[in-house]
Amino acid sequence: MTEDSLDMLARLPPGSAPVACVDIGGTKVAVSVADAQGIRGKVSEPTAKEGENGALAAQIIRMVAASCAAAGVRLEHIAAVGVASCGPFVLRDGLVELAAPNICGGLAGAARGLPNDWRTALLEAPLKAAFPIVRVENDGVGALEAERRWGALQGQSHCAYVTWSTGIGMGLCVDGRVLRGKNGNAGHAGHTFVSDNDDALCGCGMVGDVEALVAGNAIPRRFGALGFQDSAALFAAARAQQPAALEVVDGLCVVMGRTLFNMAATLDLQRIAIGGSVFWHNQDDLLPRLRAFVAGKLPALTDGLEIVPAGLGERVGDFAALALVTE
Amino acid sequence: MTEDSLDMLARLPPGSAPVACVDIGGTKVAVSVADAQGIRGKVSEPTAKEGENGALAAQIIRMVAASCAAAGVRLEHIAAVGVASCGPFVLRDGLVELAAPNICGGLAGAARGLPNDWRTALLEAPLKAAFPIVRVENDGVGALEAERRWGALQGQSHCAYVTWSTGIGMGLCVDGRVLRGKNGNAGHAGHTFVSDNDDALCGCGMVGDVEALVAGNAIPRRFGALGFQDSAALFAAARAQQPAALEVVDGLCVVMGRTLFNMAATLDLQRIAIGGSVFWHNQDDLLPRLRAFVAGKLPALTDGLEIVPAGLGERVGDFAALALVTE
Repeated sequence: MTEDSLDMLARLPPGSAPVACVDIGGTKVAVSVADAQGIRGKVSEPTAKEGENGALAAQIIRMVAASCAAAGVRLEHIAAVGVASCGPFVLRDGLVELAAPNICGGLAGAARGLPNDWRTALLEAPLKAAFPIVRVENDGVGALEAERRWGALQGQSHCAYVTWSTGIGMGLCVDGRVLRGKNGNAGHAGHTFVSDNDDALCGCGMVGDVEALVAGNAIPRRFGALGFQDSAALFAAARAQQPAALEVVDGLCVVMGRTLFNMAATLDLQRIAIGGSVFWHNQDDLLPRLRAFVAGKLPALTDGLEIVPAGLGERVGDFAALALVTE
Repeated sequence: MTEDSLDMLARLPPGSAPVACVDIGGTKVAVSVADAQGIRGKVSEPTAKEGENGALAAQIIRMVAASCAAAGVRLEHIAAVGVASCGPFVLRDGLVELAAPNICGGLAGAARGLPNDWRTALLEAPLKAAFPIVRVENDGVGALEAERRWGALQGQSHCAYVTWSTGIGMGLCVDGRVLRGKNGNAGHAGHTFVSDNDDALCGCGMVGDVEALVAGNAIPRRFGALGFQDSAALFAAARAQQPAALEVVDGLCVVMGRTLFNMAATLDLQRIAIGGSVFWHNQDDLLPRLRAFVAGKLPALTDGLEIVPAGLGERVGDFAALALVTE
């Protein structure tokens, strides 16, 4: 899909009230507004991690105003705010707060070196006080909804979106319904165990989960001593047929292949779409290996299972929050 | 729950038309009928595996008549047939056929030694030709529905039923809805990979999945050389504090603990109920280890997660098919 045709997707019907789209990551927060003219006015800042635990929500409220100013939209016209956020979430009085280890210093312990002692970051309550309609979902759920609406999962009732990026996240859909779970945390399969490994520490504090083994941030930690300081270095070496790099890439694909197979066996999926920077830039190396891993395993479960690149490519994130607040 | 109170559960409201309850396993088929007088007329036979691939359905139709005769119910009064079956399933023209490796010789290859070359066993189509209402589900789904209705999962919207028996199966419920998937095979998480192991062959033909590592039928294969010919021998030795047995039991609980944690992280569950013969007879040894494995792992996902014994105990199977055809 071309950039132009993607931008067309983001144009709301003429006369639609504008909406704000908020993307919360552990490193940065991005806010845009969208209306009949498309998505625009993108502002981006490092994620607020100092002060009181309402600081992140205050930052978002301020950034929505800034995005409106940049886009020439009046703040009081914003009809809804979609928030696609890293997780996990906890609910307090039915409203989402973040319990993300890379934002809340009170969870991760001093070793993480975060400048706060938050156990949670406030999110949904202050936003609901500021805007008429707010919908907060895990970023995996947002991306899944965007892919089902505009991307590679259109018309799919049994499907998953998988992001293979700095971290590993998912959105899951079975029987035509997006899975949420008791706190909206369904899809945290990046933190499942699929292999024995006791030397890979995850940001969540666990050892040896999928994210600790294959996420972008795991590559320098696990393979830096081999000369692979990031995924770009690793895959450049693999494309040059360096045996050590090929062995590492094969190993990553066994772990991710197991993870995809596990989802298919657990949920009886029809199609899995994969995005995220690690996957997107190296899909020619990764996709054949992932498909080969799954092919033939328990045929009643995997026959007809499709593993495909995300239809929205690198822009899934831009559309995730938009999908949450538009029909 | 006492046997008497369980039997009371199975009494349909006065005046209800009788239903037939069919439980299909790889080894045997059991059929009962239920009405206002309760479940009764149980007949059981080895699972039909010879002749044409309609043999199993013909067996079931014959056994429903036999169960009616035993119970003093007129066959033509049977209003519905609930079928809880081992899987996996495939759909042909929207109707369930079995593609179970321990029933269909054409799937498993000559090594399994089955006396047929079936790729599938007919099921839903011939039953629908014989009875007014037929509902076929994976036995994990049937057990889940029984536990949600009468057992330990009452009132739970985000839950799983796990059977730890000859094999490993599950039924899954998220956001108040039982998961089915594209062919009704959701819940086959016994065939997921949670550990590295290349010496454990599963009945499904894969190597190293959960069922291959911890199911009842894996114990003699993996640990027979240590003197543990079955789970009874293993757990007797563990209760006698034999170090080798304790080490094996600890290892089994790491694999099953990972599996339960993976389900909680993937689906954001509130409660998991466990049944099945291996678990049921050894729950005092297994439950504390499983709870200890999960406790403290990624607290946003596991805080408040309950792991409990099945409320229907060893009789879950009796109630699974009944739950499928009664309100």
